Amino acid sequence: MRFLLHGDSAAIEAELAKCPAAKAVSEVRHCDKAIGMDEKPAQAMRRGKGSSMWNAIEAVRENQAQACVSAGNTGALMAISKLILRMGAELERPAIVANWPTMKGVTTVLDVGANVESDASQLVEFAIMGAAFHHAVHGAKRPTVGLLNVGSEDQKGHEEVREAHAILRETTLDFDYHGFVEGNDIAHGTVDVVVTDGFTGNVALKTAEGLARFFSNEIKSTLTSGPLAMLGALIASGALKKMRHRLDPSRVNGAPLLGLNGIVVKSHGGADASGFASALRVATNLARSDFRAEIDRNLKRLTATAAMTPSEDGQGPGADAQGAAG
Amino acid sequence: MRFLLHGDSAAIEAELAKCPAAKAVSEVRHCDKAIGMDEKPAQAMRRGKGSSMWNAIEAVRENQAQACVSAGNTGALMAISKLILRMGAELERPAIVANWPTMKGVTTVLDVGANVESDASQLVEFAIMGAAFHHAVHGAKRPTVGLLNVGSEDQKGHEEVREAHAILRETTLDFDYHGFVEGNDIAHGTVDVVVTDGFTGNVALKTAEGLARFFSNEIKSTLTSGPLAMLGALIASGALKKMRHRLDPSRVNGAPLLGLNGIVVKSHGGADASGFASALRVATNLARSDFRAEIDRNLKRLTATAAMTPSEDGQGPGADAQGAAG
Repeated sequence: MRFLLHGDSAAIEAELAKCPAAKAVSEVRHCDKAIGMDEKPAQAMRRGKGSSMWNAIEAVRENQAQACVSAGNTGALMAISKLILRMGAELERPAIVANWPTMKGVTTVLDVGANVESDASQLVEFAIMGAAFHHAVHGAKRPTVGLLNVGSEDQKGHEEVREAHAILRETTLDFDYHGFVEGNDIAHGTVDVVVTDGFTGNVALKTAEGLARFFSNEIKSTLTSGPLAMLGALIASGALKKMRHRLDPSRVNGAPLLGLNGIVVKSHGGADASGFASALRVATNLARSDFRAEIDRNLKRLTATAAMTPSEDGQGPGADAQGAAG
Repeated sequence: MRFLLHGDSAAIEAELAKCPAAKAVSEVRHCDKAIGMDEKPAQAMRRGKGSSMWNAIEAVRENQAQACVSAGNTGALMAISKLILRMGAELERPAIVANWPTMKGVTTVLDVGANVESDASQLVEFAIMGAAFHHAVHGAKRPTVGLLNVGSEDQKGHEEVREAHAILRETTLDFDYHGFVEGNDIAHGTVDVVVTDGFTGNVALKTAEGLARFFSNEIKSTLTSGPLAMLGALIASGALKKMRHRLDPSRVNGAPLLGLNGIVVKSHGGADASGFASALRVATNLARSDFRAEIDRNLKRLTATAAMTPSEDGQGPGADAQGAAG
């Protein structure tokens, strides 16, 4: 693994001087300009050219880098990535992935914020991209995929999820479609991949982050609430430390922007060194995998199945279905 | 407070015999029929007449009871309540409320599942109903209300939330409209009332329930993971017990179905005695309050403001706006 580091070379060189092993595999590309954390995506696109973020993404398009990792402004990263790398063939919309620690391991949840609305065909794309990502990064050979809904029966939910459910049920893909799942199935780890629209996914993710902070504060204030509580916490400190490690969000840091012609991974802005290392690991695993070939293969199967399925007006696999597949 | 208890009289009388104080204020209304937990709402409406749930709701319509509390099938309870009690004047859609324990107290979240989609005017209704509920049950004189979104800037989110945001901002109501809030604001207690559509609200609530179970399992397994952990937990048991009490979901049990001509409160099916008592307290507080008059008053203000606001085609408060208010 080698690194191209884009940014203020003086600051970067000063850090690299402390770590010869990293310096040996790094090349610094100086630039003065940076995208601010509060800049609107449209503004970032207009004035972003020549910024560290822009250059890092451009290096991916130019095949100088196999992946880009950034802890910067998410909206700007998405907008500039779409502009420079463009969407992958046959894909409509990008998606941001969250890696969610669960009772059974890690669940992949997408979209958690690239879109505010998603129709059925976009939800199906998310399923295909999420499964390929989960396979590449979390290792499941044949991931299970669930569609987030307010109940598990076929008639539950709005039209978009019901239509996506029908498509996923009747298409043979490189993963097992489990059916509808509910909010509580995420932490339970019922499936490897949970698919939802970017609005619902973003709310669910931030709700969970808020609740995790709430619980962590509760535990901390409980175990410092008096001398007995503090003594108890001291005696149980080994086990508590292990729990903190298990629940440490930096272990699952690194949210790829899927759907683009190139790998871009977003690190949490507040990630520490081990958190940023997780994001690098996600990018490396993706770069070493054939996840984009897997996505293409499944998209082709989807198109083939759609062409075989009688259209709703009963004309069968005729002109209409061919048209939809073309 | 007096109780009308609907159901199998033999079973109810046997329980009442153990508690003379409850027996003294209770009247038993026997019926043989019950709605099953798995019955579909449509089926429950068709065959529900004469069931304990049906009779309990009918007693509210007949003014024999000021409120109905049920731990039964939520979908059936909603469907039969709408059928018997009907929607309140000027209200379009009912909403189910969740009481959410937060860092600062309790936040009211609605809708958490009565609807799968909500347009702007329905979101505004939820804000009005939620604020009146919060005032009646949780005591805030002038609740703060936030609209759940994926960011706090005006241009964030889909059309429905942006339109509801604009309406709430320009109308003077009996509560303070805070603006957009995000998922993490729920547990943080940023506002008293969080308004969202039933799909997003249901996913957020169940995601949080799943995460709460995950954390509770983590703490339990950590504190029983070895002799030192167990000793520490024993020494800190007083503080841990207080934390368990603070986080006990039964303390906030009791989800009203708002928007109906009458009070119906849903208790969690698995609630224990103290949880069911919370649901009774919610019903009593609502019955003793003038929350329905508060809803009516705010709906009138909303209509008046809409009539004063220039319509989008620039005609001002003329025929068009009058028509919308009529």
